[in-house]
Amino acid sequence: MIGVGLIGGSLARALRKAGAVREIIGASRNAAHLQKAVDFGVIDRFDTDVATAVQGADMVFVAVPLGAMRGVFDAINGVLAPGAVVTDGGSAKAAVVEDLQAACGQTPPWFVPGHPIAGTEQSGVEASFAELYQGRRVILTPLPETDATATARVRAMWEAAGAIVNEMDVGHHDEVLAATSHLPHILAFTLVESLARMSEKREIFEYAAGGFRDFTRIASSDPVMWRDICIANRDAILAMLDHFGQDLQVLGSAIRNHDADSILRIFQDAKTARDAFTVTTGTTAE
Amino acid sequence: MIGVGLIGGSLARALRKAGAVREIIGASRNAAHLQKAVDFGVIDRFDTDVATAVQGADMVFVAVPLGAMRGVFDAINGVLAPGAVVTDGGSAKAAVVEDLQAACGQTPPWFVPGHPIAGTEQSGVEASFAELYQGRRVILTPLPETDATATARVRAMWEAAGAIVNEMDVGHHDEVLAATSHLPHILAFTLVESLARMSEKREIFEYAAGGFRDFTRIASSDPVMWRDICIANRDAILAMLDHFGQDLQVLGSAIRNHDADSILRIFQDAKTARDAFTVTTGTTAE
Repeated sequence: MIGVGLIGGSLARALRKAGAVREIIGASRNAAHLQKAVDFGVIDRFDTDVATAVQGADMVFVAVPLGAMRGVFDAINGVLAPGAVVTDGGSAKAAVVEDLQAACGQTPPWFVPGHPIAGTEQSGVEASFAELYQGRRVILTPLPETDATATARVRAMWEAAGAIVNEMDVGHHDEVLAATSHLPHILAFTLVESLARMSEKREIFEYAAGGFRDFTRIASSDPVMWRDICIANRDAILAMLDHFGQDLQVLGSAIRNHDADSILRIFQDAKTARDAFTVTTGTTAE
Repeated sequence: MIGVGLIGGSLARALRKAGAVREIIGASRNAAHLQKAVDFGVIDRFDTDVATAVQGADMVFVAVPLGAMRGVFDAINGVLAPGAVVTDGGSAKAAVVEDLQAACGQTPPWFVPGHPIAGTEQSGVEASFAELYQGRRVILTPLPETDATATARVRAMWEAAGAIVNEMDVGHHDEVLAATSHLPHILAFTLVESLARMSEKREIFEYAAGGFRDFTRIASSDPVMWRDICIANRDAILAMLDHFGQDLQVLGSAIRNHDADSILRIFQDAKTARDAFTVTTGTTAE
């Protein structure tokens, strides 16, 4: 378990609860964090040297910010046990695959790119819990070079943690996530920063209600992680930003021109889609 | 109680629970809705004619969409009991005051413009509950012509319902609400409509997680109410949209230019402001 925060810690807890692991070894640069993970019972032991930590492991999960992926791949390439499988939890897959190829000089068969569509605005092992992936989707984006057995083992791991596993290609993943996750986070961060700068005394926030609280909850997410996502999935995010910016201008023009019918049509279509989404996901744990 | 939906119905329930009312008379054009409100015990009786309903009332609360305010003011002007006080729950105050002045030919002393900062994405009397205003803010925007006794009575009414009452001028209210409520709703509606149009089979929504659900919850709000708000608070909303659009372009440029430091600074400032907001409002009921 390279990186034992919300994502790695929750997977460790889920697999242990399911009886699907023997020993879980944590690795990262921060010994204090890792000791906390041991104290919580999330991992059994740790090593601050990644190359040492992965020796003898049959499954390696990389749950570090996207900006730290390349360093991990450099460290583990060549020291893995025969038959070991490596997968990750990064939110942008093309960038992870590029880092992997740069570190290994080729596309190794033992790496299965993955992304659990779950999380909270919290971070750190303190926030981890065994049920995080229950009923949630995990997307795997295996490459033509990826060993089918490796993909099957990663799928089985996530299913043991309670997740629903889908496969799609790297590019499609990055577009879908830019739309449903990266753009919303960017809008929430930008709105809150914009309002905070407008209002010196933060008086403006005193009159915000529940809708604002829900809308901006994701602006409490980890800034480093989201900076890395913006850099890593740049092209898909810029395309979505452009698309959204045009739609926002259309609505702005309708408001400027008192075009009540166009405004109503946009809001009605949005409500229809959002109400349908509520029904689809209404049975999940959250 | 003119309009017995989420806002009017919840106030009726709260005042009855507090023992602050004798008889509550509902008015709107829809007898079936009003009968439902009687069946739920929210109102005591109703009249589909507004002018008849307000006769003898000592307090009138107007809780209709902004587009219906003018018709209500036309109907009640001249038929109110001596000493009767009228207030409203509209989300944009300048537009309500304009409608009032147009209906009355002057600014009457008996009207206290008001706005409870509370609500859910639900609507209708079925969604109303007595605790909606508990610990929530209500903004009153009395005018120079408004009778101070009338303002005090409206304040006392909201305090009986559990709310915290603040006063500010009409223009400041409309700017603050454009920032913290109207803009977020517009962004959520636009994003969901934009994604729904991109994804014919709605496949895109299947991979959305809890962050997206929270962010877009307000896109399930009543389209007619929000169309009316966009028209009524047009100037303040367009100013905020412009301000936000510029900030979004700044972030887009930073992403395009791989300017990791600028991205991080924006996200960190947003997280700081949003985390402070969580603390401030952490004690409220919701």
